[in-house]
Formats: sequence, structure tokens, C-alpha cells
Amino acid sequence: MKSEIIVIGDELLIGQVIDTNSKWMASELNKQGWEVTRITTISDGADDIKEAISSAFSRVDVVLMTGGLGPTSDDVTKPVLCEYFGGKMIFDNAVYEQNMRYFAGRGLQMNESTRRQAEVPDVCTVIPNPVGTAPIMWFEQGSRVLVAMPGVPHEMRVAMKGDVLERLRRHYGDHDAILHRTLMVFRNTESGLSERLASFEAQLPSSIKLAYLPMPGVVRLRLTARGNDEASLLKILDEMVEKLRAILGDDIFCDEDTTLAGALGKILKQKGLTIATAESCTGGNIAHEITAIAGSSAYFNGSVVAYSNDVKQRVLGVSEEVLAANGAVSQPVVEAMATGVMQLANTTCAIATSGIAGPDGGTPEKPVGTVWMAVSCGEKVVSECMNFAGSRTYIIERATQRALMMLVGLLLARD
Amino acid sequence: MKSEIIVIGDELLIGQVIDTNSKWMASELNKQGWEVTRITTISDGADDIKEAISSAFSRVDVVLMTGGLGPTSDDVTKPVLCEYFGGKMIFDNAVYEQNMRYFAGRGLQMNESTRRQAEVPDVCTVIPNPVGTAPIMWFEQGSRVLVAMPGVPHEMRVAMKGDVLERLRRHYGDHDAILHRTLMVFRNTESGLSERLASFEAQLPSSIKLAYLPMPGVVRLRLTARGNDEASLLKILDEMVEKLRAILGDDIFCDEDTTLAGALGKILKQKGLTIATAESCTGGNIAHEITAIAGSSAYFNGSVVAYSNDVKQRVLGVSEEVLAANGAVSQPVVEAMATGVMQLANTTCAIATSGIAGPDGGTPEKPVGTVWMAVSCGEKVVSECMNFAGSRTYIIERATQRALMMLVGLLLARD
Repeated sequence: MKSEIIVIGDELLIGQVIDTNSKWMASELNKQGWEVTRITTISDGADDIKEAISSAFSRVDVVLMTGGLGPTSDDVTKPVLCEYFGGKMIFDNAVYEQNMRYFAGRGLQMNESTRRQAEVPDVCTVIPNPVGTAPIMWFEQGSRVLVAMPGVPHEMRVAMKGDVLERLRRHYGDHDAILHRTLMVFRNTESGLSERLASFEAQLPSSIKLAYLPMPGVVRLRLTARGNDEASLLKILDEMVEKLRAILGDDIFCDEDTTLAGALGKILKQKGLTIATAESCTGGNIAHEITAIAGSSAYFNGSVVAYSNDVKQRVLGVSEEVLAANGAVSQPVVEAMATGVMQLANTTCAIATSGIAGPDGGTPEKPVGTVWMAVSCGEKVVSECMNFAGSRTYIIERATQRALMMLVGLLLARD
Repeated sequence: MKSEIIVIGDELLIGQVIDTNSKWMASELNKQGWEVTRITTISDGADDIKEAISSAFSRVDVVLMTGGLGPTSDDVTKPVLCEYFGGKMIFDNAVYEQNMRYFAGRGLQMNESTRRQAEVPDVCTVIPNPVGTAPIMWFEQGSRVLVAMPGVPHEMRVAMKGDVLERLRRHYGDHDAILHRTLMVFRNTESGLSERLASFEAQLPSSIKLAYLPMPGVVRLRLTARGNDEASLLKILDEMVEKLRAILGDDIFCDEDTTLAGALGKILKQKGLTIATAESCTGGNIAHEITAIAGSSAYFNGSVVAYSNDVKQRVLGVSEEVLAANGAVSQPVVEAMATGVMQLANTTCAIATSGIAGPDGGTPEKPVGTVWMAVSCGEKVVSECMNFAGSRTYIIERATQRALMMLVGLLLARD
């Protein structure tokens, strides 16, 4: 099934905020086996909205829309949709009462503009919004469906997961079960992997699809099974995963679709290990990635962001001599940082970074982008120097992902 | 001048990556006084690309395009553009030689597919790409211009800033100077601010525009001056800023367009203060925000991410009794964390957080989203408890921004 996404909001067209909704929606639809063929971002203007809907319906039957449903006068999506589908606005008591309860639960008063949130076109099915006041609206016209959802990411996600995706599948008689298994693979490029898996792919059953999702240092392999017999799909999926394990062995480092920090967390938990980070140039971003994972307190004790040499010395115990002899961006310093933070935070593993994130501070010997990284587990320490050419943000992000990968590599090393 | 952006890439339509390019481009174009009226994200398919270009040119004269210029066979943008504009592909020696130098500088060998990066349509002007191998292509057709740029964010940004924006202005005879001044305002809502500035706005000279850019806790006021006499525009802008200062006084906390952490950094530098953070639930994200600012090492010494109670006690010196009596998510603990990290990192200021980011770990008294935050400067400590309802990511992000704002508030308090 093909669909398009329309994102409404002046704030996106002036570049004030990044649209994260369409990525999330596309990802969820994709997991259901639905294709997103276009994403169109438009202003809050009535003409733009009407034209974008007509244009989308000339290509596909399903249009998912977010944004433009706020209580302020610049949000015109609701009346525009009402006109487009030939209805009139009515006051929906059920929505009103739910919004009353929503406000009361937060100790807030409703005013006239929030009261207007209960006005809806009489030509749509209203889907309750449990986490906000903007109603979710389902429009049908012949074989076509348009769903209008709030632009607030949390509200849109609850709507999609709670009701919209399931309703879409029912409406189009898509009663197949769809199941996924994701394997995260390292030590392979995408092209190298596709060579290794050529005969596996040639023998895939028709109910199974394989997708390659590459990222720096990692390729995700996603198996999607589709059919009406869930039990047999599960069985086939298990078989396919076993086949992949037989081919790729321990190049598969995680059997879940998660971030690199999430995969690392699983390995740490399995092995009963704990972790701390000692960060200079990454400035806490590695700790942030690790703690973005729910349940990370089971294996993450803490971190030291050691920006000044004083903190490197006094808190992490890096010696003044080592700092003076090698400079802060060096192998001995980053290794001492890793060892130091393991002791300080009483962990079995550590990640440390020291580098020049720029834009200033580079030298001919150590240009901007030079980053020393060390990872340790017990007595073992591995360190590496990389040059990540790019912006400050890019350097921090790449060093973060690379250092996480290094520890995964150390923990799963073939000795 | 109106323009549209076309973003090409299958990886965006399956929700694998977030498109950050279009936000950045829209923001830069907007600063130039150019309007972006639509952003269209499409697949790497030839038909989709052609249709999207025709459709965009039916509405506007300027189309900026990113992506689809890689060396692999699924990147078809170059031949599609060649066909669309009625040209043929030629080998560009200048591009080839530059790419040779680019590869040699990185110690890499060119292969056949990277060699093909030097093939370009003979109907475009090639703009050199100093930071990558994909050529930037400028097409003209009557009054219309299309610019195709690489999808790699760093390469696109260098192209836009280095040449594309200026060329566009010259091409359309847009010789006006465009100048901006941004003021960051707190203690005001957007609607409250627009009431306070009603008569200021009514008297604005025609060469000046005022935009409100609201974010949680902050409203950015952006003055844009446009005209052919730069010196007089500068003078008028200065006058307008003075008028705004007279009306808003110390509600203006920063006179630069930056993040909250950037504004805090400016205040710390001006006052000769230094900062450290002690983070539990924010997991290093506040340190990450602070260190994302270039030059932050001038005022940021370091941080402790204290996830375990053991690290809170041993590293930050929070007493076992205080932890046992109040729990980790409490006012006494978060204040002790702030005081502790100031001593440890030898700073004059600190930010500390302790909360429940979820999804598990909540209780009826302290539900998920409960966050205690403390900020300190010298002897002064201010703390606050908030409940941020939402996902783990949302709670971490809101607590981060709120805590940064609290310290700005403390440093600029009217005593």
C-alpha cells in the first residue's frame, strides 16, 4: 500500500524547527509493509493545504497529515479539511468533555480558543486524543482516506500507535500479520555483506523480505515476514535468523533494533559488566547516548566530563607529567582517563575521549577533528586515533558512535 | 523571492534518517529574505524526480535540491537533470582533477565509481565542491534556476554559504544588503510580548521587519533590515535595538542568535564565571549542550554524571543520610549535588538534576517526569521541581533546557 505524508507548519518553512514526525511515521508505516512515496511540507495557508491534498490524492489513496490543529487563528487545517470533504463544522460534545477532563486533570481553565478545539467537521470520524486537546480526524472519500493528526510529536505517536495504524490496516483489508526481526552486523560493509548473503537472499521464501539499513560502522539487517498465519511466520523467521547466524557468526552483535548504545547496553547486561565514561571533546554526549536507553541505570554508574586539565588530573588521576609530555589529545592521556574513571566510578568497563572538536584549537600535528579514543574492560585497554573532518557537531557525533563501537568490538573480540 | 526545496533519498522515505538539510536551508534562505514555500521529499526514482521538478517550477522560479549525487548506481539525479534540461553528459576534467587531489589528500585511491563523479551535464554550470567529490550543479532555464547539491549536510552547507546563496542573489538582481539582529527574551509569553511591543511594531520603518520565534521559556525577536545602504541600515537597526531595550529592559538576556547554552556561555564569560554540571536523569545532556558551543572550554571545567547513588556519595560528596532520608530525587540531594560539583570541579557556578526519566521507576508520589533541578552561583542556590509528562527523550530534553534557563535566571536576577 502506498501513502503520502503532508506536514503542515510555517515554523518548518522558516527553518525554526526540524520535522521529526515524518521520519517516525515513515519508519512505522514501513514496518507495517506500507510504502511512503512522498513527504510534502507546506505552510498553514488554506490554498496550499487544498492543493497539496489534491496533488497527493492524484498519486496515492492514503494521506497522513500532521500539524495545523492548534487552537490559534493561524491554524486553519480543520475548516480547510471540512470544506475539502464537503462538510460543515459541528460542536462535538464527547471531544469537549474529554478536553474538560484533560484541563481539569492539569488544574487548568479552558478558555474560548481551547473550547473551539471541540469543533469538528461533520464528515469525519473523530478519534479521541488521550494526550492532548486536538481531535484526530479520519476522512473517507471513495477508496481514499485522509487522517489529520496533531503536530505535537508525542500526540501524533500515541494516535498512530493507539489507533490510526490498526484502523488503516482494517480499512484496506490488510489482515496479514507483519513480523520483524532486526540483526545488527559489524565488521562488514553493505556491499561486502550483500555478497556474503547472495545465496541466502536467492533462497528467501516469498513471505520474507530482507532490507539492508547501513550506518557508519554498522549494517542493520531487517527481516520482514508477512502472511495470515502468525505461528508459521514466527517459525520461518526463526529459521532465517538461524541461517543468518550460520553465515555471519559473531559479526552479528545484536539481535534487536536499537541504537549502538542500546546494543552495547544489552552486551554489558548479558556479561554482567558495568560502565563509566571519561569525556573530553565529546563533552558528555556518550553518557547522554548511554542514558537515553531505558534501564541503563542497571549497568551505567556515571561519567566525568573532564574538559579542563585540572579535572583530568584531580578527578580522573591523570598525572601532570603525562599531560605535559604528551598533551591532552594523546594516547597515554586518553588511556589514563579510561583507567581513572573505572576506578572512580567503580566499574568494569570504560570509554574515554580526548580530541579537538574545533572550529579552533587545531595545530598542523593535531588538526581539528583529531580524536583519541580509549575503551577498557578489566585489564584490557584499546585505543585509537581518528580524524573526523567536519563541523564541531559532526566531530562530536562521529567520535561518540566510533567510541561506542570500539567498546562493542573489545567486548566481542575473538581472542 | 519564493523558492522550493526538493530533498531526494529513499532513506528518508523509509524513515531511516532525519532530514536536517531542509531546516538549515530554509533558515538560511529566510535570513536572506527569501521565502521557502514548500519542501518535497521524494525517492531516488527518475520519474519522481522529474515530476517533482516540473511541479515545483509550476509554482516558483527557484528550486534547491539536495541528495542523489552519490557514486552508486541508485543515485540517478545527475542523468535525470541532464535529460530534464536537454543536455548530454560530459567528463569534466576540472572536477576530476579536484577529486584526484581530494582523494590523494586523504591517502585514498579513486576507483571507477568515484571517477564517474566527474561526469556532469553539459547544460549546467559546475560549482566546485571543496569538501567532497559530488559536483554542485547550477541549471538555468529562462527565469528559472535549479541548484543540485550533495545530501551530505556538511557539503551542502559549505556549498550554500560559499557560493550558492550569493550567486542566487546576484542572478535575481537582489543587491540589497540584508542585516539581522536577534534578541533573546525571557519572562514573557509570545502573546504578552506582542502586546508590549504593539506600538513599537506600529512605528517600525518599512526597511525593518520583526519576527517572533518562540520556544519553551524563550522568545527570540529577530529584526531584519533590507535596503541598498548598509551603513544606514546598521544605524536604524541599532536604534531599533535601543528602543527594544528601553521597552523590555533586562528581559532581554542575550543579543545574539544562539542556543540557551550559548546564551548562558556568553553571560558566564561576561561575568568571569565558570561552570560544572552534576547530572543524574539528564545523563550528560546538559554538559553536551554546553560543550556544543565553540569556545566553551573558557568557562566549562567539567561534569559528573552521577547515575548511581554510590557516585553521588563518593564523587559529589552527597551524604548517605541525606540520600536515605529524602531519596535521590529530592531538593536536598539535588542542592548537595550542585554544591558538590562546584567544589570538585573548582567552579563558581553549577547546574544539577535528579529525576525520573522513565518509562519505569515512577511512584505515586514521584511519577515519571518528576525532575528536581538546582542551580548555584557562589553562595546562592535555587532549586525547583517540575513534572515533564512525555517520553524519556522529551523529559531529558525539557529538563535540560529548563535547568539552563534557571541558571540564566539566577545570574540575571534582579536583587
